[in-house]
Amino acid sequence: MHFPFSVRWVGNADTGYLELLDQTLLPLEERILKIADASVAREAITSLRVRGAPAIGAAGAYALVLSARGITDSDQWHEKLTQQAVWLNDSRPTAVNLSWALNRLVQQDAKNPHLDLITRKENLLNEANRIIVEDREMCECMGKNGAALIGEGYGVLTHCNTGLLATAGEGTALSAMYYAHRLGVQFQVYADETRPLLQGARLTTWELHRAGIDVTLICEGMAGMLMSQGKIQLIMVGADRIAQNGDTANKVGTYGLSILANFHKVPFFVVAPSSTFDHKLKDGSEIPIEQRKAEEVTTVFGQRIAPASVKVFNPAFDVTPGSLITGIVTEKGIIKPVSRESILNHWK
Amino acid sequence: MHFPFSVRWVGNADTGYLELLDQTLLPLEERILKIADASVAREAITSLRVRGAPAIGAAGAYALVLSARGITDSDQWHEKLTQQAVWLNDSRPTAVNLSWALNRLVQQDAKNPHLDLITRKENLLNEANRIIVEDREMCECMGKNGAALIGEGYGVLTHCNTGLLATAGEGTALSAMYYAHRLGVQFQVYADETRPLLQGARLTTWELHRAGIDVTLICEGMAGMLMSQGKIQLIMVGADRIAQNGDTANKVGTYGLSILANFHKVPFFVVAPSSTFDHKLKDGSEIPIEQRKAEEVTTVFGQRIAPASVKVFNPAFDVTPGSLITGIVTEKGIIKPVSRESILNHWK
Repeated sequence: MHFPFSVRWVGNADTGYLELLDQTLLPLEERILKIADASVAREAITSLRVRGAPAIGAAGAYALVLSARGITDSDQWHEKLTQQAVWLNDSRPTAVNLSWALNRLVQQDAKNPHLDLITRKENLLNEANRIIVEDREMCECMGKNGAALIGEGYGVLTHCNTGLLATAGEGTALSAMYYAHRLGVQFQVYADETRPLLQGARLTTWELHRAGIDVTLICEGMAGMLMSQGKIQLIMVGADRIAQNGDTANKVGTYGLSILANFHKVPFFVVAPSSTFDHKLKDGSEIPIEQRKAEEVTTVFGQRIAPASVKVFNPAFDVTPGSLITGIVTEKGIIKPVSRESILNHWK
Repeated sequence: MHFPFSVRWVGNADTGYLELLDQTLLPLEERILKIADASVAREAITSLRVRGAPAIGAAGAYALVLSARGITDSDQWHEKLTQQAVWLNDSRPTAVNLSWALNRLVQQDAKNPHLDLITRKENLLNEANRIIVEDREMCECMGKNGAALIGEGYGVLTHCNTGLLATAGEGTALSAMYYAHRLGVQFQVYADETRPLLQGARLTTWELHRAGIDVTLICEGMAGMLMSQGKIQLIMVGADRIAQNGDTANKVGTYGLSILANFHKVPFFVVAPSSTFDHKLKDGSEIPIEQRKAEEVTTVFGQRIAPASVKVFNPAFDVTPGSLITGIVTEKGIIKPVSRESILNHWK
């Protein structure tokens, strides 16, 4: 059994390629995509072949390495590189990690305007690789910090997929579960299937099951019943963007879950690295929410499940107010309670 | 375009048959099942080819008419009929309408122990037909009573399917929408797709769309976001069993919806006929909740969507406390507020 990965690079900047595990096919098929073209990489991000905020950031960085290959004019190099970064950033609007990673490469390049293009291309790849390495380290630290919240015998509810498949490391919320599992803590994970794209059913159960972690699949509508029966002691989710005041965009359904948690007095934690914080945004109302096509709701693996002509509302994310979040676990520690001040202090 | 129906009888008691629209195939195919065997009718109930509390009651009554054909011993007739009713009642545990309808036929039969078997069989069919007629009338009254709650420009959220397909008439919660639509009220319905069996996506959008009612399909996880955006002015759902204090079993996900409604101060109404009230049960803790098989969650129309070996929690229903219900619309009026006393007074 190979170790699952979401995104990695093989070879050098000039002739190497990006590898992605095509997550749209899981758990039916484990297909690795080898991508040497920026347009193909961008399509892979848009169509969620790679997904999860940190993994999107890493994939976007490598996509920019591929974009750079096509730029041969050294006078306009940086300007064209910036244009390519804007084009790649447009592929998905909500997760801030994508623009964070792309900006990081563009700014790194701007530091050395006099280097030859071959070196600048290698520098871009090195920076993208550093993002991967740092992401793994952040996952490890979030895992350790988050694992401390998981008590013996707990039922832990999670939403969407926030693990190996969503990051370059072991994940955000799931990293805490992997860590606690290695510590020998006995706990039970309940995974929301996460409609419409079923990241929980297809990805979270798949990777937790491989790791030997006790996981039970539920539909979103069953979460309230589990809480009322006292089966959930902790909720842990990831994040796609966190505003100054702690308002958090995450996979649609997270907001409703936070209200159920509030009602049942179950602690509700977000687990996210520094790259997910958008310090420019005052609150969640400024976070752009991606609307996706109707077919994601009306079909499943190509199988139609609703009348073809039906109207559909399909936002990919919702925003949970910071006031409903018990705490935010980062690579640095835990922000608790969640407020503008506590977030500011945490990152000082 | 024929008028959709969920359940009806064709012919006499001796040679007639039950017709069901096979709801497991909708919206892909409109197939009418012609059933002349009680075991086949029972399987149709168990596997949700017919579903919806009132429709299950009617189908169960006709199934007992089919069962009665096989009883030839006039000495043991009533005892065997009662055994058949118990066997049919075991097909689905939560909706009280099934036992209500079966008991009604058995008690009707007990009144005339000296009639010949041919007459008793016709009497059973007549009683089953009366259930259908009364159900249609109750739907009409619930529609009228419920329509008064639907204001101009409202967004009305519903869960599962409570319409033509769930009853012998125009439904419970959906009947109110049909009625308001005929009155010329402009409103927008949001239909929860209702995992795992997608009754909202497959059935509710299908029947409302046919009727020209403006309907938008959402996944359960999007309901909270809609409420926070002020798009929902009213929630209307059906019921499978209502206890003395108003605790209401309904399709799983209803409980969570009631908490979201409470949080956002959106009125939350249950619409159900007298046959759904179980006056024997003190509260919701006494309502049996049907657990269904894992495959309902892990496959969609036979398409696998999760690892085969994954553990699944799949209760078909949950219980919403009466305290979270704004009011209950019945054929007689509206119970509001919901309490043991108000329910008792309503049915006095």
